[in-house]
Amino acid sequence: MSTHSSQPTASEIATLSARAIAKGVASGVLSAEEVTEIWLERIAAVEPALRSFIHHAPEQARALAAVAPKGPLAGVPFGIKDVIDTADMPTEYGSAAYPGWQPCRDAPVVHLVRRAGAVVMGKTVSTEFATAAPGATVNPFDAARTPGGSSSGTAAALGAGLILMGLGTQTSGSTIRPAAYCGVAAMKPSPKLIETFGVKPLSATLDVVGPMARDVRDLALLVSVCMRRPELSPDELVPESVLPLKPMGLFLPVHDPVADFAPLDRAASVLGSVTAQVAPDWWEGLGVAQDDVFSWEASASLSVDRDLHWNELRSETHAFMERQQKGSFAQWQAGIAARDQALADLDALFGKADFLLTPSAPGEAPLGHARTGPATYNIRWTLLGCPSVTIPAGFGPAGMPVGIQLVARPGEDAALLRQAAAVEDALRAAGIEARPKSRAEGV
Amino acid sequence: MSTHSSQPTASEIATLSARAIAKGVASGVLSAEEVTEIWLERIAAVEPALRSFIHHAPEQARALAAVAPKGPLAGVPFGIKDVIDTADMPTEYGSAAYPGWQPCRDAPVVHLVRRAGAVVMGKTVSTEFATAAPGATVNPFDAARTPGGSSSGTAAALGAGLILMGLGTQTSGSTIRPAAYCGVAAMKPSPKLIETFGVKPLSATLDVVGPMARDVRDLALLVSVCMRRPELSPDELVPESVLPLKPMGLFLPVHDPVADFAPLDRAASVLGSVTAQVAPDWWEGLGVAQDDVFSWEASASLSVDRDLHWNELRSETHAFMERQQKGSFAQWQAGIAARDQALADLDALFGKADFLLTPSAPGEAPLGHARTGPATYNIRWTLLGCPSVTIPAGFGPAGMPVGIQLVARPGEDAALLRQAAAVEDALRAAGIEARPKSRAEGV
Repeated sequence: MSTHSSQPTASEIATLSARAIAKGVASGVLSAEEVTEIWLERIAAVEPALRSFIHHAPEQARALAAVAPKGPLAGVPFGIKDVIDTADMPTEYGSAAYPGWQPCRDAPVVHLVRRAGAVVMGKTVSTEFATAAPGATVNPFDAARTPGGSSSGTAAALGAGLILMGLGTQTSGSTIRPAAYCGVAAMKPSPKLIETFGVKPLSATLDVVGPMARDVRDLALLVSVCMRRPELSPDELVPESVLPLKPMGLFLPVHDPVADFAPLDRAASVLGSVTAQVAPDWWEGLGVAQDDVFSWEASASLSVDRDLHWNELRSETHAFMERQQKGSFAQWQAGIAARDQALADLDALFGKADFLLTPSAPGEAPLGHARTGPATYNIRWTLLGCPSVTIPAGFGPAGMPVGIQLVARPGEDAALLRQAAAVEDALRAAGIEARPKSRAEGV
Repeated sequence: MSTHSSQPTASEIATLSARAIAKGVASGVLSAEEVTEIWLERIAAVEPALRSFIHHAPEQARALAAVAPKGPLAGVPFGIKDVIDTADMPTEYGSAAYPGWQPCRDAPVVHLVRRAGAVVMGKTVSTEFATAAPGATVNPFDAARTPGGSSSGTAAALGAGLILMGLGTQTSGSTIRPAAYCGVAAMKPSPKLIETFGVKPLSATLDVVGPMARDVRDLALLVSVCMRRPELSPDELVPESVLPLKPMGLFLPVHDPVADFAPLDRAASVLGSVTAQVAPDWWEGLGVAQDDVFSWEASASLSVDRDLHWNELRSETHAFMERQQKGSFAQWQAGIAARDQALADLDALFGKADFLLTPSAPGEAPLGHARTGPATYNIRWTLLGCPSVTIPAGFGPAGMPVGIQLVARPGEDAALLRQAAAVEDALRAAGIEARPKSRAEGV
C-alpha cells in the first residue's frame, strides 16, 4: 500500500500526463476524487474567460470520480464535443434549435471512454452543427484569437489545461486545425476505425471522431480506447524511450501565398531524413471533390434542420446550407470518382515514404472570432481517408502555437501514431514544443 | 376540375398502385383523406391478426392527410421500421430497453419521405435492434410462417396491402429476404446513396436503408425520393411500356443442398438471354468476411446496450452479442481486405453481364416464428456494396410467395431498377407474379 508521504502533491499532480494520472488512479496511488478537484479548481479559475464548455458538470464529475474508476483512462479529466450524444448531459449540437436536448444513450465512443474510467467534465463548445457559426470560446494563448473550429471547446480546454483528453469530430478540418491553433495533439483517424454513431451527422463519407490530447503518447492512449485496440496504448506502441524515426516526405502544397511554412521548415530541419515531395497533378482538384461530396451528403443530413428549424439557425449556417443546396448527385459522383482515382495513385503522393509532413493549418490562429480559420490543409486528407496527426511544433511569429501534420496511408493508424511520437520526441529534444513551462498556465 | 362522377370508387382506389395514388392526390383527382380512410379500414380489419405495427397512429395519419399533401409520394400509405427515428412517434428499436423512447428529430430519410407527401401510418415491427429476436408479426400469406426479418413489419404490411410503401434496413439480409417471403419488391441500395443517419446502428460498413414497395415501379418511385434523384422516378426511368431486357448472368451458388432453385429456373426460362455464371473461388469466403466485419463493428455499436441494459434484452440478442464479442480487429481487417480483393475482381463474378439473377432466399418462408430465415443469399452482396432488388416471382411448392434477386455492380442502382422493371414485366407477361388477384386479399 502507498503511504501518505509517497503521494504527490496537488501541484505535482497538476503537471502529470493523462497516462500517468490513469496509471496512478487505476493502481490506487492517486485518488480520482483528488485529481478531479484539482481540475475542477482550474476550470473554475479559467473557464469564465475561456468559455470552452457549453455544459460544465462538476457534480457529475465528482460522482464519476467517487466510484474509484478503473481502466486505461481511470480518472482522466475529459471533455466531449457538444455534437456527440451523452446520456447524462444535454447535447445541443451547438445550436439553438436543440435547446436542452437530452439523448437517451451515450454515443458508442462516449461509452467506450467512460467504460475506460474517464471522468467527463462536461460538453465542449462546437460551432453550430460542426459547420460555420462559431461558439463563444476564445484561444487559450490569446483571447483575441479564434481557438479554431468546429471542435473549438475541446481544443481550447486542452490548450488551457482544463482537461487532459477530449473528443472532437472532423468532416473538413475540424479536429486537426483547432488542435494546432491551441497547441495540442489530435488525430483524424482512418474512416470506420472509430464509430461515428451518435454524432450529429454531416457526411457519411467524411465524418470522423477526432481524439485530442496534450501530447502524442496521451493521444495514442485515447485512440487505443476509442478503437478498442490495446496494442495502440503507449506502453505497447510508443514506450517512453528513443523511437526510430522513419523516412518522411515533406509536402508543401504550392498555391497558398498567405501560408507560413517556416514552422514546418524548422521542424523538418530538426528531423532530417525528410525528402521534398511534389504534389501529383490531381492534388488540387481534390479540394473541389471534398466539397462536392460534403455538399450533397450534408444537404440530406441537415434537411430536417433546414426545412423545420430555419429561423432558429445562425446566419453563417444559413449561408452554409444555401451553398450546399447547390450540390448535385452528379457532383457527388464526380467527387467520389476523383477520390477513388487518387487512392489508386497514392504512390504518386507518398513517393517512397510511408509518411508525409505537411502543415496542420496555414499559420497561427487568426485574430478575431467571426471565423475559425481555413481547412486548406485538411480537406483532402479527410476525403482520401488518410489518417493524420497534428503535433505541437513550437510557436509562430505572433507567439501563437503551431502544429505540423503527419499523414499516412489509409489504415496505417498504428504506424502513424508511432512515427508521430518519434517526431514529437525529436522536436522536444530540439526545444520545439508548444507548451514551454512559461506558457503552460495559458489564458 | 374533376366532377364527382369521374372519381374512382373506394374499391377502385384500393387496387391502385402507389404511383397512381400519388399522382391522383397531387393533382387533386383523389382526396388524401379518402385514400387514408380506405387503408385505415384495411388496417383495422387485418392488423389484429397480422401484428405488423409496433405503433399504429391513425389520428396522426388523418392529420397528415388533412393538409392535402403534395409531392411525388402524396397520400401514399406508408410504414417505417421501428429502428428508424421518427419525431412524432415512439422509436423503440424493437427492444424493451427503449420503452416509449421519443427521438427529437426524424431520420433524414424519414424527412425526405414525409416532405414528398407520404402519409405515415405507423412504425412497423423489427426484430430487436434489427438482429435475431423476432417480433410478433406473422406472414400475410400463412400465419403459421415467419414474415422474415429483421424488417418483418414493413414486409408483412406491404404483403397484406396495409401500406403501399415502406422502409426497412439491411445489414445482412434484413430487407431482401422478408420482402421475398411476403411477395413484395424491395431494394438494398449501394452504400452511401441513402442516408442511414437516425437508424439504430449495427455496422457503419454494412447498414443500409432498404426501400420496399408492392412492385418495381413503385419501388423506383420511393428510391428516387430517398436518393433525391428525380431521374429514377418511374416516369423518367421505367415508363409503363415494354422495356428492353438486357443480358443477365444466372448465379446459383452451389453449397446449399436445402435451397429450392426451381423458382429461379422458372423465371430464367421465361426471361431468356440468361447465361449461367460460375462463382469465383473467393465467393464462399465472403460469408465469413461479412460476419467478421459485422461482429467487430456491432460489438462497438451495441456496447451501451450490452453493458447497461443486458437484463432488458431478449435471449436471442444475448446469444447474438456473445457471439459477436468474439470478433477481433484482426478479423475485421481480414474481412475488409477480402471485400476489397473481391471488388477488384468483380468481373470474375459478373462475367460479361451487368446483372446477375440469384435467389432472394433459399426458398419460401419457413414454418414457425422462432427465426426469420437464413440470409445466405444476401450477406455477400451487402458486404460488396452491390445493389440488389428482389422481384416477386410467383409461388413455391407450399403456395408461399418467392422472389428472385437481381444484382448489379456498386453504384449501378439506376440501371438495376430499370432492368428489374423489365424483368418484372416479362414475368407478369408469363403469368408469374406473387400477387394474383385471388391472393391479393392476403391473411
